Parts: sequence; C-alpha cells; structure tokens
Amino acid sequence: MRVLVTGAAGFVGQGLAAALMRRPGVSDLVLTDRQIDGPGARPGDLTDAGFLADLLSPGFDLVFHLASLPGARAEAEPDLGHRINLLAPLALARASAKARRGARFVFASSIAVYGRVADPVDPATPLRPDLSYGAHKAMTELFLTDLSRRGDLSAISLRLPGIVARPAAETGHGSAFMSQLFHKIAVGEPYACPVLETAACWWMSRRACVTALLHAAALSGPETVIQPPVLHATTGAVARATAEVTGQAAQVEWGNDPRLTALFGAMPPLDATPARHLGFAADADVRTLVAHALAKDAP
Amino acid sequence: MRVLVTGAAGFVGQGLAAALMRRPGVSDLVLTDRQIDGPGARPGDLTDAGFLADLLSPGFDLVFHLASLPGARAEAEPDLGHRINLLAPLALARASAKARRGARFVFASSIAVYGRVADPVDPATPLRPDLSYGAHKAMTELFLTDLSRRGDLSAISLRLPGIVARPAAETGHGSAFMSQLFHKIAVGEPYACPVLETAACWWMSRRACVTALLHAAALSGPETVIQPPVLHATTGAVARATAEVTGQAAQVEWGNDPRLTALFGAMPPLDATPARHLGFAADADVRTLVAHALAKDAP
Repeated sequence: MRVLVTGAAGFVGQGLAAALMRRPGVSDLVLTDRQIDGPGARPGDLTDAGFLADLLSPGFDLVFHLASLPGARAEAEPDLGHRINLLAPLALARASAKARRGARFVFASSIAVYGRVADPVDPATPLRPDLSYGAHKAMTELFLTDLSRRGDLSAISLRLPGIVARPAAETGHGSAFMSQLFHKIAVGEPYACPVLETAACWWMSRRACVTALLHAAALSGPETVIQPPVLHATTGAVARATAEVTGQAAQVEWGNDPRLTALFGAMPPLDATPARHLGFAADADVRTLVAHALAKDAP
Repeated sequence: MRVLVTGAAGFVGQGLAAALMRRPGVSDLVLTDRQIDGPGARPGDLTDAGFLADLLSPGFDLVFHLASLPGARAEAEPDLGHRINLLAPLALARASAKARRGARFVFASSIAVYGRVADPVDPATPLRPDLSYGAHKAMTELFLTDLSRRGDLSAISLRLPGIVARPAAETGHGSAFMSQLFHKIAVGEPYACPVLETAACWWMSRRACVTALLHAAALSGPETVIQPPVLHATTGAVARATAEVTGQAAQVEWGNDPRLTALFGAMPPLDATPARHLGFAADADVRTLVAHALAKDAP
C-alpha cells in the first residue's frame, strides 16, 4: 500500500509517520513537508502545482493530509492561509483522485469549524467558524464529502482539537498555552498561563490523535466527517495531574486573556456518541492525557 | 456607485440589469458574461485571471455574482463546474475586496446547499448538499462570511430556488420542467411534465428574485446568509393557475421521475421568518407567481 503523509515534519506528522513505519502492509511511505529529510522524504510546497503533480505520480492508496498554517498565523497572513489552508487541500484532493480514483483520504480538520460555542456540541451543532482557519477547514470538509459522493475519493475528515504537548518551537498556534502547561510543569519551571485555571478545554494527546487518524484510515463505512471524542477538562485539573505524574510542583500564574479563553478555554461538553460507536476514543483521563502528552514515542 | 453584474446575459442577470439601469445612483453599470453585448457589456471568462484583473480595475462598490454552471451540467462536467462554481466566485470575491475593501457583494447561492430534505426547512437545517453545485455554493457562502468577518467585503448570500419561467433555450438546469410548465400551457401546447402533479416545489419568479437581490444589496445589517421566502406549491396548482391566468386549457401529461422528484418535487415547508423580518417576500400566491413568471419586463 502506497501511503502519503503531508505536514509530515510537524508534531502530529512525525508521530503518524513513526507509527506508519511499523505498520505491516505499508510498502511505500512518502513523507512531505516544506522542509523534511530522512527515509521517504519528499520536501516541497503543496501550493506549487508542479511539485504536486510530481508528488502524485504515481498516486497513493491512502493520503493523510495534515499540512496547514496554524490559525493565528493564517489570521495574520490571509493570502498565505488561503493558499495553504484552502487551495492546497482542494488541489491535493483532486490530484489524489485523478491519480488513483477512490483513494482513501484522511483530512485533519479542526474543531475550529464550530466557532465559539456556548451549548454542548453534538452532531447537530451548526458550523459558524470565526477564524479563516476554521472556515477553510469547513469548506474542505464539504469539498471532500462531495468528492466521496461522486466516488472520486473515499474521504474522511477528523475534527481535531489542539493536540498536546507540542514542542515550544512550533509557532502560530493560539492554543500553544495548552502544550506549554505540560512542558513547563514537567521541568519544574514557573509558567504564566494566559487563561484561568477554571478554563475548560478540549484535550487530545498526540498518541490519541495518531490512533484516531489510523482508525479513520481503516474504516470503510459511509461516514465522511467525524467528531472524535476529546477529554473535557480544566487547565487547573491538567496542571495538577501534570505535577502529580511528573513529581514536580506546579508553579503556574493564571491569567485571563479574553480572546484565548473564548477560543480555547470556554469549551462546552462534547457529545461524540457517533464516533464512539465507530470505535474512536479520547485519552481516558487527565493522568493518561499527561502521560501520553509527555511521551516521546509514537503510539 | 459602480456596480458589477456577473452572469448578466442569463435569465436572472438580464432582469437584474434592466432594473439596475433604471435605478438612480448607479453611475457605472458593468455587465459581464462569456458572451454579452450592449451598454456596459464586458464579455469574458471569470476563470481567466487576466480578464478578472482587468474587470476589477477599478473596483466596484457593489457586485452581484450570478454567474454559474447549472447543477445538472456541473455534475456531468466536474472540472468545468469546479472552475466556474468554486474557483471563480472565490477569485472574484478576493479581487473585489482587494480592489475596494468593504465592497458590497451579493451572491446568488442556492437551496441546493441543503440537499434532499424531508423535514421542514428552518434556520437550523444542516447543509448536506448532494450535488457538486450545492457543495460549491455552500463553500462559497462560508468563504464570503469569513471575508465579511474580516471586513474585506460586506457580503450577503441569497439561497435561491429555481427561478421561473426560464426560456427553453437555457439548458443544464435539472429544474427546467418548472419553467416549461408555464411556457407550454401559456401557448396552448401539450407538455409531458416529468414529475407528478402532486410534486411540491419551491417557486420564485424572476421578478421576486430581482426584488430580493436588490433588497439584499441595500441591507446594512450583519446577516451574511439569507434564505428568502419562496412560494410552496404543487406542480398541479401552478398548472391550473397558469391555465386560468392565460385562458388556455392545461394539457399536461404527468410523469414520475424519481430523481427530479427527489431534487425539486418533494420540498417540505420552509420557515423563512428571519428573512421576512428583514423585508424579503415571496410571490404572494400562485396566480401572482404565474403573472410574474410570464412577464417579459423587469420589476
């Protein structure tokens, strides 16, 4: 099976690539990103039509499209966001279908498709994205569902929350504080968290995320959009669990940034029953989340 | 005020252009379509980046984007549909915003964004388009709402039903029967209608449509997507009213095409209360619909 991972040099991409390398049945694994090296690496720019045509020749049985410009950076650089977060997935999806009709296509969508939500989120929650990042993700979901209806692709979009714990070097994520919280406490450093300790977030470790991506790839049902379960917990509960698991004292000064709180720290409960029935699972509890979030290895 | 109409040679476009020509305050009216002549005409292809750049220099205060490839034809020619129904509106919207930030942009969206609906349609109805045409309209709505949020445009999308009574020469519309019904009865010819006389459709005359487009252009509220009211009536009721209004005997042989019935003839009631509160109105009754549908003139 020929498999492509885009955004393969990123935090989730590296974890997914490591897991795929150990999978039986993956005969060719191609890893692309703007800068990447190692086995299977094909560095290049997905918004470059020439590179895309080369990359997709021959086609793939399975594509994981993870590459994106983070939301905060896309908001600041809208032309770049338009190219990377909208035109690139549309072009990649079409090229994947033309190279191998019916190919499996797993798209890393985002909970940003909902926008700011007050009521519990369930499958009837309308999409009202309030960042271009979320609008582009919602548009791509619609596009992929239509290609699947036509039989051009077999696509599935996973609405992911911020994945933890990203390295501090990855920039442009408004949700960076959700990762820094783990890292700073784990090494015993003080941390000025920009939201209150009562901020309620949706959490998912890289390990749970990679497991969900692989599970989505293996499904064969008609579902084209999945809201996977997440762990719904406060920053305070996560900080305490991180201190317990790592044996450190949490030294956190809590802030109250209204924008970051509205975007990431005021999340209502999530009813992900349909995804649970399909076998998707969240990190089991906050201590498991911490252990997974700080794990160096892939699942 | 500089005003642009795309798709201006089409059935709705001609009606809108005629109405705009009589409007005070419209200093420059530019009408574009692939083939068009007369005052203000700028023939060209919106999917051609060079033409688009020329067209938008200088920019417009108000843009009506009506141009599209009809749903049935887009389904048969997906690459053409992708260019005309998705890439063109995205490029036009971006170019309009870059040429004149905050310009008013009225987009002819479609009830095809809903897909096949069984329950009454209201503002909470989810979007599950089952044609590429509807998927592209829904994607463009999301895109325009995001540009409006950013202040790049002041955009409003109107979800239009099939507009009647189109000339028989306009092809590619799956809903063509909804127009032919009027024309054939009006001239006393027999007509083989492909759906039952109990088929329930959503109707809007060109006159009501042009009035809605002009009303949308003049609104200044925060609404970015409008479901205008429609007339909900059976094909049989419309046929009887057409015979009465035109003094002809309706000679209709009713068919039972399952695909056309599912797409256009099994429409549930529509709750368009939000749009009514904003001053939008449907054709008042079936006799008014017939009179408007067969009128040669613009509103």
